[in-house]
Amino acid sequence: MERIPVGILGATGMVGQWFVKLLAGHPWFEITALAASARSAGKTYAEAATWVVPGEPPKAVREMVVESCEPHLPCRLVFSALPAEEAGPIEEAFAAAGYAVSSNARNHRYDPDVPLLIPEVNPDHLGLIEVQKRRRRWQGFIVTCANCSTAQLVLALEPLRRAFGLRAINVVTMQALSGAGYPGVPGLSILDNVIPYIPGEEEKVEREPKKIWGMLQGEEIAEAKVEISAHCHRVATRDGHLEAVSVALEREATLEEIVAALEEFRSLPQKLELPSAPARPIVVRKEPDRPQPRLDREEGGGMSVVVGRVRRCPVLDWKLEILGHNTVRGAAGGAILNAELLLAQGYLS
Amino acid sequence: MERIPVGILGATGMVGQWFVKLLAGHPWFEITALAASARSAGKTYAEAATWVVPGEPPKAVREMVVESCEPHLPCRLVFSALPAEEAGPIEEAFAAAGYAVSSNARNHRYDPDVPLLIPEVNPDHLGLIEVQKRRRRWQGFIVTCANCSTAQLVLALEPLRRAFGLRAINVVTMQALSGAGYPGVPGLSILDNVIPYIPGEEEKVEREPKKIWGMLQGEEIAEAKVEISAHCHRVATRDGHLEAVSVALEREATLEEIVAALEEFRSLPQKLELPSAPARPIVVRKEPDRPQPRLDREEGGGMSVVVGRVRRCPVLDWKLEILGHNTVRGAAGGAILNAELLLAQGYLS
Amino acid sequence: MERIPVGILGATGMVGQWFVKLLAGHPWFEITALAASARSAGKTYAEAATWVVPGEPPKAVREMVVESCEPHLPCRLVFSALPAEEAGPIEEAFAAAGYAVSSNARNHRYDPDVPLLIPEVNPDHLGLIEVQKRRRRWQGFIVTCANCSTAQLVLALEPLRRAFGLRAINVVTMQALSGAGYPGVPGLSILDNVIPYIPGEEEKVEREPKKIWGMLQGEEIAEAKVEISAHCHRVATRDGHLEAVSVALEREATLEEIVAALEEFRSLPQKLELPSAPARPIVVRKEPDRPQPRLDREEGGGMSVVVGRVRRCPVLDWKLEILGHNTVRGAAGGAILNAELLLAQGYLS
Amino acid sequence: MERIPVGILGATGMVGQWFVKLLAGHPWFEITALAASARSAGKTYAEAATWVVPGEPPKAVREMVVESCEPHLPCRLVFSALPAEEAGPIEEAFAAAGYAVSSNARNHRYDPDVPLLIPEVNPDHLGLIEVQKRRRRWQGFIVTCANCSTAQLVLALEPLRRAFGLRAINVVTMQALSGAGYPGVPGLSILDNVIPYIPGEEEKVEREPKKIWGMLQGEEIAEAKVEISAHCHRVATRDGHLEAVSVALEREATLEEIVAALEEFRSLPQKLELPSAPARPIVVRKEPDRPQPRLDREEGGGMSVVVGRVRRCPVLDWKLEILGHNTVRGAAGGAILNAELLLAQGYLS
Repeated sequence: MERIPVGILGATGMVGQWFVKLLAGHPWFEITALAASARSAGKTYAEAATWVVPGEPPKAVREMVVESCEPHLPCRLVFSALPAEEAGPIEEAFAAAGYAVSSNARNHRYDPDVPLLIPEVNPDHLGLIEVQKRRRRWQGFIVTCANCSTAQLVLALEPLRRAFGLRAINVVTMQALSGAGYPGVPGLSILDNVIPYIPGEEEKVEREPKKIWGMLQGEEIAEAKVEISAHCHRVATRDGHLEAVSVALEREATLEEIVAALEEFRSLPQKLELPSAPARPIVVRKEPDRPQPRLDREEGGGMSVVVGRVRRCPVLDWKLEILGHNTVRGAAGGAILNAELLLAQGYLS
Repeated sequence: MERIPVGILGATGMVGQWFVKLLAGHPWFEITALAASARSAGKTYAEAATWVVPGEPPKAVREMVVESCEPHLPCRLVFSALPAEEAGPIEEAFAAAGYAVSSNARNHRYDPDVPLLIPEVNPDHLGLIEVQKRRRRWQGFIVTCANCSTAQLVLALEPLRRAFGLRAINVVTMQALSGAGYPGVPGLSILDNVIPYIPGEEEKVEREPKKIWGMLQGEEIAEAKVEISAHCHRVATRDGHLEAVSVALEREATLEEIVAALEEFRSLPQKLELPSAPARPIVVRKEPDRPQPRLDREEGGGMSVVVGRVRRCPVLDWKLEILGHNTVRGAAGGAILNAELLLAQGYLS
Repeated sequence: MERIPVGILGATGMVGQWFVKLLAGHPWFEITALAASARSAGKTYAEAATWVVPGEPPKAVREMVVESCEPHLPCRLVFSALPAEEAGPIEEAFAAAGYAVSSNARNHRYDPDVPLLIPEVNPDHLGLIEVQKRRRRWQGFIVTCANCSTAQLVLALEPLRRAFGLRAINVVTMQALSGAGYPGVPGLSILDNVIPYIPGEEEKVEREPKKIWGMLQGEEIAEAKVEISAHCHRVATRDGHLEAVSVALEREATLEEIVAALEEFRSLPQKLELPSAPARPIVVRKEPDRPQPRLDREEGGGMSVVVGRVRRCPVLDWKLEILGHNTVRGAAGGAILNAELLLAQGYLS
Repeated sequence: MERIPVGILGATGMVGQWFVKLLAGHPWFEITALAASARSAGKTYAEAATWVVPGEPPKAVREMVVESCEPHLPCRLVFSALPAEEAGPIEEAFAAAGYAVSSNARNHRYDPDVPLLIPEVNPDHLGLIEVQKRRRRWQGFIVTCANCSTAQLVLALEPLRRAFGLRAINVVTMQALSGAGYPGVPGLSILDNVIPYIPGEEEKVEREPKKIWGMLQGEEIAEAKVEISAHCHRVATRDGHLEAVSVALEREATLEEIVAALEEFRSLPQKLELPSAPARPIVVRKEPDRPQPRLDREEGGGMSVVVGRVRRCPVLDWKLEILGHNTVRGAAGGAILNAELLLAQGYLS
C-alpha cells in the first residue's frame, strides 16, 4: 500500500517531535512536510529542532527543510502540534484549503461541529465532519484530540460508563513535566516539590468529557450529564500522568464486574486493527502499588492506560488509579490514532 | 520555672531525632533520658544515632548515654517515637509505672480509653485519662497523636466542621519521603516516579478523624458521623504532605465565610499560649499555586497547616489544598504540643 | 551608628532577591533603593519580583517602588546583580557618578584596575581603587566578586597556598540549579540527569584565581602562576556547589598540617569582625561522606566553605572535596562582605 | 545451533535481574537454572524476585523454581551476581565442580590466576584459565568482570593507551543509584543532594585498571604502570555513570588523532561479532553538552561507552567526559560479553 503523505505543523516543539518520532516508519503515513514558525522555516529539521524526546531524531527527517505553516504543504493530512496562541487561524486555513487536520491544540475542541475524538470512545462523532464542511464551506476539516489528562480518564472510565453508568467523577492528577512542554517547569520549581496548580487544566478536565461522552443528535452533540471535579498537580516525573479517581455509578457493580469490564474492553480501533491501537486499551494491574509512572507508562507503547487499586470508596462508590502516557496517548499518539480512524473510515479519500 | 525532666523512647530513629531537635531549648521540658533498643543502649547518643534531620544534633545530648526502654528512666514524662512493632507493651509498662506517655505510635490510638489528641480540636478528650487510669489501675497514662496525614487534615477542616458541619471528605495525599522514616523509600523507587500506595495509611486517615471529632459522652467517645475516603501517594519531596481535599458540608457557606473561618480559627493552645502552638494554626494562601511543600512547610515553625485554592467542587461542595509538615505537626511537634497541653491542664503534677 | 543607604541594581532577579534577603536587618547597610529593568520600574517590589529564594520577601521592601537603573538613586553604595548583558555600562555610569559599586557581574572582573575581591584572600587589592578612580576620572568605583565556583575554590585553598604553595589544581564541579538563575535549567533537562557543561564556566574558574592570587605591584596585578583545569557539571541540587579537587603543592605537607592550616585559617574579615564574615571561613568535616550539599551548605550562614575527604592523590599531591553556598558566599553574600570590607577600610566615606 | 544451558547465581537481586533480562532471547545461551539464597529457594522466580529493572520479567522465567546456590545446577556456565559477602566460596565450589563461572563479584578480581576481563581490552588474559585450573586442580574456572566505574573508564581510554600511552589518569565519577543495588541509597539521602563517597569504590578504580592493562607474562600478569586517582560520587540518576577524566599521555597527540582513535576503535569482540558486542564500542558525541546519563546511557544497547568534550587539560594533557551504562556494560552485560568470548574462544567446550 502506498503511504499517505502527511505534514506536521509545529514540528519543532516537543509534541511536534513526538509526532516525528511516532510517525517514523508508520505503515500508513509518510512524513513529507515539516512546518513551524518563521524563525525555523528554511532551516533543516536538525538545525531547527532541539531534540528533547527519547532517542535520536529519525534520519529520514534530519535533512528535511522546515517550511512555514501555510497551506501549501505537499501532503493531504496535517497533524497540528501548534501552541494555542497560534493554532486557531492556521488550522482553519489548512482545513479551508482542503487538508484534513488532526489537531492536538485546544482551540477548536469545543466548536460544536468539530469532533473531540477518542477512537475507542466516540468514533461516531466523526459524523460531525460533514456538518463542519458544509457549514464552513471547507474542502477539508478539523478533528481534535482531548487534553492529556482528559484522554486517559475518559478512556479508562469508558467501560464503566457503558456497563454501569457514571454519575460523578472526582479526579486528582499528578502530572508529569513533559505535559508542560519544553522548557516548561524550571528545575528549581519542582525539585523537592509539588505544584498544586496547572493553569486552565482543571477547566479542561471538567468540560471535555461531557462533549466526548455526549450523544450525536442530528448535527449536534448533546453533552453527557456527569459531574466532574478535578484537582491538578505537577510532580517531578518525566512522563506519565497519574490520576487518583473516585466515581459514583448509576448502577450497582461488584469488584469483579468492574475489573472484568476494564480488562475485556475492546472497541472499534482494536476491531479495525488500527496500527497505533493497543491490543488492550486498558491494562489492569493487581499489585497493591501499581500503576506507577516510571514502571507502567510504556504499556502498549504508551497507548494503553493502566488501571490499578480498584476498591470501594466510602464517599462516592469506587476508587481507582489511572495512568497514561501524556505525550503518547495524551497527545501525539492520540492524534495519530484519530488519523488512522479517519483513514479506515474513508475520510481521507 | 524549673523545667520538667522528660525522656524519649526510640530516640535514635528519625522521629526520635525530631523530638531531640524540637525539645532542645524547650522552655518547659528538659531532656534527661534517651532510650532506644538494646543495640543502642550503652552508647553515647552521637554514636548510636545516624542523624538525618536538618542541622546538627544539639550539643546537650551528644554525650548522653542511651538507655534501654525500661520504666526506670529519670523523668516523669516520656515521648514515644517507638516503631509500632515495639511500642505497645513498652508504652504500657511506662504508663503502669507512673509515667505520662505522649506517643506518636499508632498502637493505642483506637483504645477507647486513650485520647487521640489534637490540642486545637479535641482537648476535652483529656477527660479519658481518668477513665484510663482507673480502668487499667495505672499510675501514669498514655495520650496519642494522630497519623501525620490525619493530623493536618483534621486541623485544617476543624473550623469548617464547627461552622458548617462536615458530611463527607475525599482526600488524596501526596506524602513526603520523611513520612516513611529512614532509610524508608529507596531512591531508585521514587526518582521520576509516584507510588500510589502506602501500607495502612488510607485506613488510618479514614478512621482516626471519626474518633478525634467524636463526642466524649461519659466514659466513651461516640464517633463522629462523617464519610471519609483517602487515596495515599508517596512523592519525591523531603518534608511536607500535600492533600487535595473535597468536602461536603452540612450547611451552605460562601467562599468568604470559609476563608474567614479558616483564617480566624484559634483554639485552646493559642489561648493558653502553649510554647509550640503556632499563632495561626491555619494560614490561608491566596496565590493560585500555593501551598507548595518546599515553600510552605516551615510555616509556623512547621506547626501551622497551610491552606490554599479554596473553590467550589462540582461533585462535593468545596475543594481545597492542605499542606502540613509531617514530621513536625504530624509527628514530634504534635506530640510535644500534646504534652504542653497536659502540663497546662494539670495532668503532669 | 547610622546605617548607610544602599541600592540594589537588578533587584528583581534571583541574585537580586538574595541581596534583599541578606541585607534585611543588616547592621551597617539599609536598603533605600531597588532598581531593575524598565519593565519593572514603577511597580512595587512585591509586584515586580517573583520571589524564588527561601522564605518570604522582607516586609520593609514589599511596598518600595522599583526604580530604573539610572545613577540617581538615593544611596551611596549599590550592589549589582545585573545580568552580564546589561551590567557593563550601567555599573560604569554609577561609578562615574560617584557611587561605590559592589558587583556580582562578570563584566569588569578582568579589568586591570578593578579588584576581583575575596576579603579573606586579597584585601590588599583594594589598592586598585585609587588607580581606577584616577585613570577613569571617576568619583566612585567598582569592585567585583568572583564567580561562584571560583570563590569557594580560592577561599578553601588559600591556607594551602599560604603554607605550602600551589602548583596545580584540577577541579570537577557539581553545581546547583540556583547557579543558573531562575527559570534556569528546565526540570525535564535535569531530572534523572547530569549535564556536563556550563557555558563559560570552565574559563572563569581557570582564569579568575590567577588574578585573585596575583600580587599587587605598583598599579598592576601580576597574575599568580598556578595551573588550573576545570570540568563543570550541573546536577539536581537546589543550592551548594560541590567540587572534587586535586592539588599539587610546592612544598611537602602532612595530612595533619593540611587540616590544621584549613581549620585554623582566619583572615582580615574575621579580625575586623565584619558582620557577614563567618567565624570559621573553612569548616573541615572528618566523616568520610561529607561535605554534602543538602547537609552542609548552610554552614556559617552560607558564608563558610566546608572541606572534607582530605587525602593523598596518586596523580597530583592531595585531593579533597569543597562545598560552598553558591548564592550566598558565591554571589550576594560575597558582594556584601566586599562592601563591608570597603566600609571598614574607609572606602565609603 | 543449540543454545548452551546457563544458570544465574544471585538471580533475584538487581544485577541478577539484569542477567535474566539480557539473557532472555539470547542467541547462544539459555537460562536453565536460577539460584539464590535459601530464603528464595523453592519459590517461583516471580514470587522470589521483586522486579526492579525496566520492563516486566520475561515469561520464560516467571514460573521457574529458584534453586539454592549449590553446584548441582543443570547447566555448564553460571553467571554470578552474588553479593561479595557470599560470592567467594560459592563461586569456588562451582568452578571446582566443573562449571565455568562468569562473575560480577569483586572477590576473585585480584587473584593472580583469575582473568579480570574486558573483551575489547585484554582478551589474551584468558590464558590465565589454564594456569588457574592447573594450580587449583579445578575442572571449571572463574573469570571476572571489572567494577562498573572501572569498566567504562578502561574501555574508553584503551584506544588512547594503544596509540599514545597513558601516564596518569584523574577520574571524578558521578554514579547512578542503580550502582548501589536495591534498595540501595535512600531517597531521603539523595534528593537535592550529592554524596561524595562510595565505600571501597575509589580503591577499585585505582587498582583494577593496572591488572586489566597488565601484560600476561608466563603465568603472571605484570601490572601496568599508570598513575590513577579517583574521586567517587553518588548522584540522583537512575542508570549511567558519568566520569570527568583528565589524562596524561606518553606521546603527543592532536585532538583529531584522539577523536579518530576513539571513533575507529574496534577490537576482538567486534571482529568475532559476539552477540552482545556493540558495533561501536566507543561513540564520540561532538555537542558541547554531551554525554548526558539520561540521553546517552542506552547507546549500543547499553554496551557502548559514550565520550564527549575532548579538550586540552591545563594540568594533565587532555580532558574528556565518559558515560557508560553501569548495570549493562558495567555489570551483567559485561559478564555476558565475557562468556560470549569464552564460547567463541573454545573455553566452554
